[in-house]
Amino acid sequence: MSLAVSRSDVAAAAELITGRMRVTPVIELAAGELGVDVPLTLKLELLQHTGSFKPRGAFTRVLSAGATEAGLVAASGGNHGLAVAHVARELGLSAEVFVPTTSSPVKVARLRSYGATVHRTGDFYADALTASVVRAQETGALVVHAYDQPEVLAGQGTVALELERQTTKVDTVLVAVGGGGLIGGMATWYAGRVRIVAVEPERAPTLAAALDAGEPVDVEVGGVAADSLGARRIGVHGLAAARAAGVESVLVSDAAILDARQRLWDGLRVAAEAGGAAALAALTSGAYRPARGERVAVVICGANTNPADLVPEG
Amino acid sequence: MSLAVSRSDVAAAAELITGRMRVTPVIELAAGELGVDVPLTLKLELLQHTGSFKPRGAFTRVLSAGATEAGLVAASGGNHGLAVAHVARELGLSAEVFVPTTSSPVKVARLRSYGATVHRTGDFYADALTASVVRAQETGALVVHAYDQPEVLAGQGTVALELERQTTKVDTVLVAVGGGGLIGGMATWYAGRVRIVAVEPERAPTLAAALDAGEPVDVEVGGVAADSLGARRIGVHGLAAARAAGVESVLVSDAAILDARQRLWDGLRVAAEAGGAAALAALTSGAYRPARGERVAVVICGANTNPADLVPEG
Repeated sequence: MSLAVSRSDVAAAAELITGRMRVTPVIELAAGELGVDVPLTLKLELLQHTGSFKPRGAFTRVLSAGATEAGLVAASGGNHGLAVAHVARELGLSAEVFVPTTSSPVKVARLRSYGATVHRTGDFYADALTASVVRAQETGALVVHAYDQPEVLAGQGTVALELERQTTKVDTVLVAVGGGGLIGGMATWYAGRVRIVAVEPERAPTLAAALDAGEPVDVEVGGVAADSLGARRIGVHGLAAARAAGVESVLVSDAAILDARQRLWDGLRVAAEAGGAAALAALTSGAYRPARGERVAVVICGANTNPADLVPEG
Repeated sequence: MSLAVSRSDVAAAAELITGRMRVTPVIELAAGELGVDVPLTLKLELLQHTGSFKPRGAFTRVLSAGATEAGLVAASGGNHGLAVAHVARELGLSAEVFVPTTSSPVKVARLRSYGATVHRTGDFYADALTASVVRAQETGALVVHAYDQPEVLAGQGTVALELERQTTKVDTVLVAVGGGGLIGGMATWYAGRVRIVAVEPERAPTLAAALDAGEPVDVEVGGVAADSLGARRIGVHGLAAARAAGVESVLVSDAAILDARQRLWDGLRVAAEAGGAAALAALTSGAYRPARGERVAVVICGANTNPADLVPEG
């Protein structure tokens, strides 16, 4: 298929959302830190509004749309739902968020604290998604997809644009993958100028399966990062962008993800969620081994974690 | 008294320790974020090695000293002890750290995990300090003071030098005060070019008391930030530097400190310790009210906290 998102769309998204998003900082680590034997640049995108990159895409989708008076609708009990609720509040719009009945009361309460109307429906994310689309047809609200819309990719791609402004000393960027919005957007921006490595949990390998099959396919999902990286199938736009840029996928185990998350706390006092630490896990576990002199950046993309899990050292 | 530390000493310290310290990032927040109605620049010094700014001063002290073969000695059950243990490990030196018997087993274990020899002695910090000096006289080890040595001030002052490189758009910097090493060093660097506001817990007002008395005086210390800001009296070098730069002191309550710490987590996913959130508390509580258009920076200086205290939102 042809690509629905271009580099100039990412640049336009950056213009559109500037001032609404934080410029998240980068930190340079020396060789040896966190148990990684090469220097690293970490992009601390977990310090973004709502604790993940997701509002970039949601703002881009909403600000690009013509009519939003009927409000927003989304399906997500996780970071995307928070992002849409945040965007609605910031723009003075209503938001309805559909979540499966299995969503934790804490997450539902958090969504409601942003002012969103939350509907619990069905056992699975797919049920919530269906219900959200039906509801949007009734009300005329704007559907903001968690990953598979061109505007969403363009917005998430601003992470790459911003990172390139902050440091040009990068050969390779490691990015965690769920539904493919972030990696699709970043691959679109870099357009082959920088190697993009997709890092996926072994138990949620949506991109790896799609690259194998040549098209998006359903996978079984589970594991410690399922709440943020547990999309069942990669989005068509994210897959197309990733293929066009020659993205490769590496898989990491749940144990490697939890170990990386703990290293971020013990060594850097960064409290990432499991999915937010997955990209680093490719380095700390050896699943991705940089060449000598290869300059590597890692996106730490989410922080919606219970920090009580991070037992202090000692 | 004449000043023992000059601006050029801070610049020299920065040269001396470059490559051994992280350049800690800053993040710009818009007006309204975290409940503060002016834009803020946060200096995320809590992402430094060992979770606080303390290794800057400790490295400067040790690398400035002629002979360190007999190792290092320090008194501290907190951030300074960790910093000295880290410096010793990095430089291949031995370290003996004296802590009061009241220090928590967790902190002692953490010090030992860095390879330091830990001695538990006496009921109070002052007892540990005395024991450490006696021990240094026996062994010839280098005493690294937690705040009241010129080299320590010069090293801590590199926080200001670095911040100025990162942003020149600052009128006022808010800094938490314990023994006065950080504020003394930062005041030395800025030398009146930027307003420095000292923020102290009401229950540990070492600088306020010294400014009132015209000299360092003992104060009763307690409260939620005592483990990092609970020095009993300000250092002579820090006081001199703060007075020379016209530093003013504002006091914040324990409740304000805990509230600021929670806002950093809820709104930014930064897990600061109580003392690390104290400077922000001056803004969120209204103890310090910036003028219209005043550009304010805040140093978030420590993260050696138990993150389990940070209950998730909702």
